[in-house]
Amino acid sequence: MEKNKLKKTIIKIFHKLKLPKKHADICADAIINAELVGAQTHGLSRLKMYCDRIQKKLINPRPRIKLKNISQSVTHINADNSIGFVAADTAIKKAINNAKKTGIGLVAVKNSGHYGMSGYYAEQAVKKNMIALVFTNAPPAIAPHGAIKSLFGTNPICFGSPTGSKVPFILDTSVSMINRGKIRVASRSNSKIPEGVALDKYGNPTTDAKKALEGVQLPIAGFRGSGLAWMVDILSGVYTGGNHGGKVKDPFDDFSGPQNIGHLFIVMKANLFQSNYKKRIKENIKRIKKLPKLKRLKEILYPGENKFRRYNKNYKSDIKIPESIIEDIRTLLK
Amino acid sequence: MEKNKLKKTIIKIFHKLKLPKKHADICADAIINAELVGAQTHGLSRLKMYCDRIQKKLINPRPRIKLKNISQSVTHINADNSIGFVAADTAIKKAINNAKKTGIGLVAVKNSGHYGMSGYYAEQAVKKNMIALVFTNAPPAIAPHGAIKSLFGTNPICFGSPTGSKVPFILDTSVSMINRGKIRVASRSNSKIPEGVALDKYGNPTTDAKKALEGVQLPIAGFRGSGLAWMVDILSGVYTGGNHGGKVKDPFDDFSGPQNIGHLFIVMKANLFQSNYKKRIKENIKRIKKLPKLKRLKEILYPGENKFRRYNKNYKSDIKIPESIIEDIRTLLK
Repeated sequence: MEKNKLKKTIIKIFHKLKLPKKHADICADAIINAELVGAQTHGLSRLKMYCDRIQKKLINPRPRIKLKNISQSVTHINADNSIGFVAADTAIKKAINNAKKTGIGLVAVKNSGHYGMSGYYAEQAVKKNMIALVFTNAPPAIAPHGAIKSLFGTNPICFGSPTGSKVPFILDTSVSMINRGKIRVASRSNSKIPEGVALDKYGNPTTDAKKALEGVQLPIAGFRGSGLAWMVDILSGVYTGGNHGGKVKDPFDDFSGPQNIGHLFIVMKANLFQSNYKKRIKENIKRIKKLPKLKRLKEILYPGENKFRRYNKNYKSDIKIPESIIEDIRTLLK
Repeated sequence: MEKNKLKKTIIKIFHKLKLPKKHADICADAIINAELVGAQTHGLSRLKMYCDRIQKKLINPRPRIKLKNISQSVTHINADNSIGFVAADTAIKKAINNAKKTGIGLVAVKNSGHYGMSGYYAEQAVKKNMIALVFTNAPPAIAPHGAIKSLFGTNPICFGSPTGSKVPFILDTSVSMINRGKIRVASRSNSKIPEGVALDKYGNPTTDAKKALEGVQLPIAGFRGSGLAWMVDILSGVYTGGNHGGKVKDPFDDFSGPQNIGHLFIVMKANLFQSNYKKRIKENIKRIKKLPKLKRLKEILYPGENKFRRYNKNYKSDIKIPESIIEDIRTLLK
């Protein structure tokens, strides 16, 4: 589908569900961005889910988002169960403004929902010549090290920085061996998942996507990745007032209440300590790209480069939408 | 050796090398703490190295540490090539004070050196009921994903939080498959290192500790761990004004100049958003500890628990010092 037409379609769907025009716009942009960077698991494949949750009154289409300024640097946001995109967009903009004033902005969000990709928000800060750390928790997917039941979400760690070029440094990595969305996609297409990334519900290794969805995903690097997932749960859930410790509901399967996801945004001026920050990071990246490399490799890439290239490539053509999602869209427009 | 006697001995050694009494005291405490928590690689085994670098004028025994307050939340420290312990102690105390005023404290340090363990400084913040993120870079040890030459340090990610009990949550994890100090210890005792954690200098897998020291350590989880190591290099080196991109010198082998390591400390009041933070994290930990677990496991532990237990156990007896280090100490006291 042509991008502008797709955007209008998504806006129409959300508008029908009583989202204000401005909020529908924010959602459409985030969803289309996910498609363009090749993160289909965070794009249109979730459209029906968001709409289902709005219809069941688990996402509030007309939230009264409350901002409480704690200091010039610090703000607490109660998102009033808004759709995650809108809560996160409000939060990153506030964090950027706080950082403009004092060098650092810290914004905690509670009563939010799934917001797509952390990197999308980090990019907003990078465009303002700022560095960003973004944390969010998510429904249970990973077993804590030593446990055979999932509790942590895939809990991404996201870091963004300007680079002195138009391609931002965006590390946006889950601490799970595999992305939950990818297992879901594999499950739908009946394809296998790699070995060593998941256990079934009895604690046995599995490559069956359906069994993995019932079971647990494994954290990267054993206790190290488990510790990082725990850190993200504390920072984004315990700290902010969001759900935590396995209480974030799966948005696809659990309609017993709002998700109450928490997010934490830390934004810092890139030039805070070194006025030539861009020159410094350019030099840093140059040194790393010049290292001797594996023979099969054409180039050493920094996090975000691949995504940027995919975006530019995909931007040139229409967005391909699977038939099942076209069906969803048709139903939602009715 | 009895702890008080050991402390006096270390202070005497540093005092002889012209460190002020107060600085020698900070160093002795940090080194003894490393021994007590069982991190021998970060304790007395480095004493001779620190002294060598002071004698060669690569560590400044009488630094004029300059603090520049950028806002109420933000401070930049030029450590004037002080021993890392003193720079880090100054920085964490400043970050705590900034956080007291505005909720969040950000302190960047340049011209510092190896400071022992990040967790030791995070603990100081936790004792003041604060959350801490601590980043430092280190000499080249890990190959960036795709490269066959090491460039990133073991670049630890450290996160500390109060728990509502006397045992703090302290995640202090390198993003390397193996700690460089452990390879060094294995090299000295001619023992093997595990498979899959290092490459020799030609890019081939190796279990030979000596070859691994000449070669590269591998990051955890491929591009994910490599990205995290890169993030730490940017935050602690590029951002602060410290060395970065492989320019941090190995303190044991490279006497061509000071290390100029950079550190970054982010400290936040634990009660900033939720007044019952301690109750919330206690509940979080309780839920995770109650999960069904692997049969061989007695208990699911959170990061920091094991270290706390080792500390308490070791605290009851004298510190065992290998003969080679006793020799070092004798020479240094001469």
